[in-house]
Amino acid sequence: MDAANDAKALDARMSKLFKAIPETMKGFGQIASSATADGKLSKRDKELMAVAIAVVTHCDDCILYHLRAAVKAGASRDHVVETLALAVEMGGGPAVVYGSRALEIYEGLQK
Amino acid sequence: MDAANDAKALDARMSKLFKAIPETMKGFGQIASSATADGKLSKRDKELMAVAIAVVTHCDDCILYHLRAAVKAGASRDHVVETLALAVEMGGGPAVVYGSRALEIYEGLQK
Amino acid sequence: MDAANDAKALDARMSKLFKAIPETMKGFGQIASSATADGKLSKRDKELMAVAIAVVTHCDDCILYHLRAAVKAGASRDHVVETLALAVEMGGGPAVVYGSRALEIYEGLQK
Amino acid sequence: MDAANDAKALDARMSKLFKAIPETMKGFGQIASSATADGKLSKRDKELMAVAIAVVTHCDDCILYHLRAAVKAGASRDHVVETLALAVEMGGGPAVVYGSRALEIYEGLQK
Amino acid sequence: MDAANDAKALDARMSKLFKAIPETMKGFGQIASSATADGKLSKRDKELMAVAIAVVTHCDDCILYHLRAAVKAGASRDHVVETLALAVEMGGGPAVVYGSRALEIYEGLQK
Amino acid sequence: MDAANDAKALDARMSKLFKAIPETMKGFGQIASSATADGKLSKRDKELMAVAIAVVTHCDDCILYHLRAAVKAGASRDHVVETLALAVEMGGGPAVVYGSRALEIYEGLQK
Repeated sequence: MDAANDAKALDARMSKLFKAIPETMKGFGQIASSATADGKLSKRDKELMAVAIAVVTHCDDCILYHLRAAVKAGASRDHVVETLALAVEMGGGPAVVYGSRALEIYEGLQK
Repeated sequence: MDAANDAKALDARMSKLFKAIPETMKGFGQIASSATADGKLSKRDKELMAVAIAVVTHCDDCILYHLRAAVKAGASRDHVVETLALAVEMGGGPAVVYGSRALEIYEGLQK
Repeated sequence: MDAANDAKALDARMSKLFKAIPETMKGFGQIASSATADGKLSKRDKELMAVAIAVVTHCDDCILYHLRAAVKAGASRDHVVETLALAVEMGGGPAVVYGSRALEIYEGLQK
Repeated sequence: MDAANDAKALDARMSKLFKAIPETMKGFGQIASSATADGKLSKRDKELMAVAIAVVTHCDDCILYHLRAAVKAGASRDHVVETLALAVEMGGGPAVVYGSRALEIYEGLQK
Repeated sequence: MDAANDAKALDARMSKLFKAIPETMKGFGQIASSATADGKLSKRDKELMAVAIAVVTHCDDCILYHLRAAVKAGASRDHVVETLALAVEMGGGPAVVYGSRALEIYEGLQK
Repeated sequence: MDAANDAKALDARMSKLFKAIPETMKGFGQIASSATADGKLSKRDKELMAVAIAVVTHCDDCILYHLRAAVKAGASRDHVVETLALAVEMGGGPAVVYGSRALEIYEGLQK
């Protein structure tokens, strides 16, 4: 696993989808920017929420995307692992295995 | 919808399950208490994370359970609605309808 | 089950969420209008797609919302039941029970 | 909750769907009868497996349908609660709340 | 990613499962053929429905399988991208990343 | 696909998560050991239940983990394929493709 490379490939794929369905993706962009803006909850914590959801819904690329955003917004390893603990509460065994991948992806992003 | 009554019925149901599978539920209790304890992220924010996951995974009783816990830990209406916005980002249309129910449940819990 | 009443209650709930998170819901509105507009695929068929997804993801309110939109866009009972057959292919037994509810909701919307 | 009545309503709904999409439902019937037939695993244990899946995928009607079949095939309360414990392992908190409903449905079916 | 090769490997895997559980897979075959037959909705549009469901339920192999079938039944790139837009409406962010993969798989199938 | 290697990598990943969130994972360990212990249902059959859930919830690593445990507890190929048939009933087409992967993983574990 090479998190930086995976992230680059993901960005390229998403960019193609953006060009294919620009109106829909513009709406999604507005959702994403408004839903993760600093407010009573910080952008960092909102991105961590998205990571938790990604773990529970079994979406590796989502884990990568939102972990990267959470780290960029200031999330430390402690923030990430506490998020994974919460995901295990809500997702059981499958969240354990996806949480394990999330931790590996997090470490990959530090390199 | 009567949130207080629904919560009471949910507690009664969960209590029966606890008695039926005490060893498993004791393990779950330990997950729940450790995963939502105050840490680098607050208990309040962890319960809000659980609400977001509940909305995205279409679980009304989970919304009720974790909203109640989030409110008890200090979550305001603003915290809740920001959480619902994030859920919409990660869950699309179904999260809109479950988010709408979450807001109604939240209001029911204020009475 | 009273589909017309349920639809009215759903609209009221969604309207409250819209007011609570207007920026996010404005983005969602743009997604919804662009994603279901007539194109190479008709609005009718896109709303039926949404019904199929709603059945497979176990979301009663989504079934109601998109069935109503599909009917308004010209979907007949035949279109609906063919959609439910496809949902059974992709969702197995749970799609059978949610498909059964979808058929009941469809009939409720005809009254 | 009145499990016997709920089961009757479910049968009626499924019967309508069967008439609406007979070819597809005939295929589903063949899956259901072959997949739950006595083999190296008993029909009883296969229906319990279906209950566990129903709990993890948040489908009340599926819980009702397969619990009834499991009981008819000889499942005791002990079999059911062990099944719910396994569901909690694989489904986390949402499986706790749906498992609680399953236990209540089981008790309703005994009346 | 090599869509043609992936499709070949998928066919081989499914063929083994067919031999292992022939009665169940015969039932599934009848569901698949009846549910995707030309009717009031075309086979093409039904396969696109299946693609949308595959994107929302995070199943890469299902995307590959049903995209190939949709293309064979006459789906153009426009049909596919409109389908992905609808999937984004119903699946949010995770559908964006799986939709991006779907577009890549579609392009791979053109080679 | 190399099942033995994949299993080794999975164990390593899970071990890191265990160290990162020991309190939560200790609770999960208690759930796992109590929920899969021999009782009225055997450990073997409970692990097969977990395999069925893993197939329906689209989790490759869970399939690997619980298939390995089921085989260790005495599950034969017949037990596994009957489990996959039940998963197809509850999961439709996506369970066919994940069931196909499960069969391949099972064969990989025999080597």
